[in-house]
Amino acid sequence: MTENPLEQARQAVAAMYADDQASQSLGIVIEDVAPGHATARMRVAAAMVNGHAIAHGGYIFLLADTAFAFACNTYGPTVAGAAEIVFVQPATEGEELVAEAKERVRFGQSGIYDVTVRNGAGEVVAEFRGHSRRIRARAE
Amino acid sequence: MTENPLEQARQAVAAMYADDQASQSLGIVIEDVAPGHATARMRVAAAMVNGHAIAHGGYIFLLADTAFAFACNTYGPTVAGAAEIVFVQPATEGEELVAEAKERVRFGQSGIYDVTVRNGAGEVVAEFRGHSRRIRARAE
Amino acid sequence: MTENPLEQARQAVAAMYADDQASQSLGIVIEDVAPGHATARMRVAAAMVNGHAIAHGGYIFLLADTAFAFACNTYGPTVAGAAEIVFVQPATEGEELVAEAKERVRFGQSGIYDVTVRNGAGEVVAEFRGHSRRIRARAE
Amino acid sequence: MTENPLEQARQAVAAMYADDQASQSLGIVIEDVAPGHATARMRVAAAMVNGHAIAHGGYIFLLADTAFAFACNTYGPTVAGAAEIVFVQPATEGEELVAEAKERVRFGQSGIYDVTVRNGAGEVVAEFRGHSRRIRARAE
Repeated sequence: MTENPLEQARQAVAAMYADDQASQSLGIVIEDVAPGHATARMRVAAAMVNGHAIAHGGYIFLLADTAFAFACNTYGPTVAGAAEIVFVQPATEGEELVAEAKERVRFGQSGIYDVTVRNGAGEVVAEFRGHSRRIRARAE
Repeated sequence: MTENPLEQARQAVAAMYADDQASQSLGIVIEDVAPGHATARMRVAAAMVNGHAIAHGGYIFLLADTAFAFACNTYGPTVAGAAEIVFVQPATEGEELVAEAKERVRFGQSGIYDVTVRNGAGEVVAEFRGHSRRIRARAE
Repeated sequence: MTENPLEQARQAVAAMYADDQASQSLGIVIEDVAPGHATARMRVAAAMVNGHAIAHGGYIFLLADTAFAFACNTYGPTVAGAAEIVFVQPATEGEELVAEAKERVRFGQSGIYDVTVRNGAGEVVAEFRGHSRRIRARAE
Repeated sequence: MTENPLEQARQAVAAMYADDQASQSLGIVIEDVAPGHATARMRVAAAMVNGHAIAHGGYIFLLADTAFAFACNTYGPTVAGAAEIVFVQPATEGEELVAEAKERVRFGQSGIYDVTVRNGAGEVVAEFRGHSRRIRARAE
């Protein structure tokens, strides 16, 4: 195990992604990993929309929550305890969305992460705030 | 169009569900519809879990958000503006989850709905609060 | 120390209130205490309003937060970790507001409490949700 | 009325503060005003604490909410619709707290503002997110 924080963050994310059926099956790609930071990218598929070809808010949350989960796990095993989301504008089928998660503050075993979801034109689709909690690593 | 509020609520939900690829493709079933109220049911599928067979929080949100959307649309066209969720305990692959949405208050064009997600044993999996906003119906 | 939960709740609240300069100096009265439940009452004073005789939202939060704090401390030493509030309608100078806090769920060391603030006419002024965390009692 | 956005922001804040009994009576000072931005400063007084000389969370919210209100009113008449707060660490009697509000995004008549409350050592005391809504200016 390296002691380089950037390398540790990338290794933690790679191991986590390898196990994550949910992210993989939706075609979510993780990029720009650094301590307390991650970007998640997803295309709005036909199965993610309602009758007006607008993405279900649940999938927008899911993308933001994924970016958040990868960002907070760059520091070691961490769980998402809670989150809030504001839906700023709709996303349509076929659009590629990018969720960028940034650490705002860490204190004790807790952390707050801000995630902005943008469309291909760089417009804000949603603002998300996630609340994390460190957990003890499982014994192997 | 009937003037019976319960019948109107059910008709609004049926029309909305018929158009909703996202809910249908996840096997979400809507039940117990009444004005300001709806229940959504979903089984945690293999594609919804991470490597430890724990449901991705995004899918739990999506189920709660679906119950919320159907509950607030019983009054006519309404959009989800924002939501908060607290993850109380994990859900595992194969479990059936039930999200019950209840109106808390409506004011002006806005509404607040509380959604509790429970597992098959009746234990709370998540608590969700959704914020809705009435929109003008589109002219046909 | 009694083993009756209702009596324990009332004793915990009385001890907490005796020490609470903030609640006392604002004339907040605590009522209807039971395990997981408390009501806080406050009149909107001249020093709580802005130029239009509308109560500062901060004081409405403070009242709701107080009801929440007393409700969650009925179970023993507990801190408020986070909260959300929606301002439903303004309150005016001289009005008496009542905040009723009810436990929604407890899990591990955490709890969620819903607080509704109403005016004298029984109309909803604000909806608040508080997130608590049990702490170890200090050694005497 | 000037057309300079910075000058307009400052005039809007000065007019608002002149009418605001709540902020004035708590000794809150507003600084660093710019479009979408404001800083509010307050000393934790004896009447703001509980029995352990820890500031009541309601007053920390009130300070953050004040910074938020001034920041969003730099664009014209705006109301606080909702807010969330996380209490990161306690503040004690006599400490001076500074709440810095920054616009995150505006869309339609809505806005989201992030407010960080820090103590004199620059440590984070609370993280707040406020949701605003533009209103029509009243006819004079």
